[in-house]
Amino acid sequence: MTTDIPRQDERAANGIAPPPVIVLVRPQLGENIGKAARAMLNFGLTEMRLVTPRDGWPNPQAGPAASGADIVLEGARVFDSVAEATADCAHVYATTVRKRGVTKPVMTPEEAARGIHGEPGRSAILFGPERSGLETDDVAVARTIVTVPINPEFGSLNLAQAVILVAYEWSKGIALASPPAVDLDPPAPQVELEGLIGHLDRLLAESGYYFPPDRVPATRRTLRSLLTKPAWNAQEVRTLRGVLSTLEKPRSR
Amino acid sequence: MTTDIPRQDERAANGIAPPPVIVLVRPQLGENIGKAARAMLNFGLTEMRLVTPRDGWPNPQAGPAASGADIVLEGARVFDSVAEATADCAHVYATTVRKRGVTKPVMTPEEAARGIHGEPGRSAILFGPERSGLETDDVAVARTIVTVPINPEFGSLNLAQAVILVAYEWSKGIALASPPAVDLDPPAPQVELEGLIGHLDRLLAESGYYFPPDRVPATRRTLRSLLTKPAWNAQEVRTLRGVLSTLEKPRSR
Repeated sequence: MTTDIPRQDERAANGIAPPPVIVLVRPQLGENIGKAARAMLNFGLTEMRLVTPRDGWPNPQAGPAASGADIVLEGARVFDSVAEATADCAHVYATTVRKRGVTKPVMTPEEAARGIHGEPGRSAILFGPERSGLETDDVAVARTIVTVPINPEFGSLNLAQAVILVAYEWSKGIALASPPAVDLDPPAPQVELEGLIGHLDRLLAESGYYFPPDRVPATRRTLRSLLTKPAWNAQEVRTLRGVLSTLEKPRSR
Repeated sequence: MTTDIPRQDERAANGIAPPPVIVLVRPQLGENIGKAARAMLNFGLTEMRLVTPRDGWPNPQAGPAASGADIVLEGARVFDSVAEATADCAHVYATTVRKRGVTKPVMTPEEAARGIHGEPGRSAILFGPERSGLETDDVAVARTIVTVPINPEFGSLNLAQAVILVAYEWSKGIALASPPAVDLDPPAPQVELEGLIGHLDRLLAESGYYFPPDRVPATRRTLRSLLTKPAWNAQEVRTLRGVLSTLEKPRSR
């Protein structure tokens, strides 16, 4: 009947981008985690990460709601922060409705799926808590926003529905097995980008850059989104770390 | 903000195919009828028809599950047979997993959505009971089968999920609330980028970064291409100039 979904290692060996990681940020109900797992597995996604789930993990409510998608729940890993959950990912997408003041590219699930298939490196897709969605600081970690185009007079997508639409769009691209993207280096893993951001932040704090105090969070966000934008590869991030180290401790002046 | 969903009569007057009717055939749980209504309204579908719902109609379980999509439930009409429920429709699609020896064209939700938009006349889309799906006799009423391409090793779509995927694909064909046009600022004029590169270059030269001398041209090229990559806008370039000025003359250290 239909083509089998290639396993992750096979895909990597073929130079195809691996399936994205689904990151549930501060999910509230175990039942919804289970439903999200079910939604994922329907379309061939298996890697789930949880950032500080409200009721801890494992959660006895998750299994029954997963309707057999136990493999996803059993493999789910828990992290303390979005940064840690995405540390090994080259691309981070944040699903959210329109956020004011965030200047990042906004894509439909369809466009995001094409991006995930077309670029080298692993992607993570962030989904916020059921009630409130992602916070601005969560979105700041991402380079791209994913928004489902929805009835402007009735937008009421629940967590599992948002996950299923994104997973469904991703699954459309796997049969294609298009030739691997050109030999562009993938963006550096998120952890390396965080290292760069942290390094600059320390330097700026020491230099008295952050002033006045009430503007500091906004300034930090501005810098973060500006440094997230380029998708620098690992070599480029290393070069910039060298730049910062030199500015920190000049060899001569 | 975005375009409103045209009313059905307006669409018909414009010669555009009207939105499809969602027909739930012998649905079992009122809760699932409510969830299907919610799924529909998210993507602008409002007309629901019910063929002999197991627990009668109206069903008190439906409302809470609809999360506000009451307009769909209030307008739902009940019929005794699939034939009666689709009597005024020009095209009937049956969603089902297996074909069961039925020789009819099989489409993905995407292809079906294109068909619905592309052909004149109203379409109906049939969804079967939660547990068993459509019977052969139900499918026989349809001209076309719709099958969601799913993980062959784990196919577990519930009723509302099947409805949402079909409604979502249909919604792509109308001018729904597409994600906001990306109001990203254009890249800064080249002269401002050059100012930034020159500023960093001066700082690095003073700090003894450029060493050994024979590597200097290559290092400069690396830095230039790395700073050109992001296409920072004017505001971002100004922010970075501020960063460099602070590192050059710290306010305190």
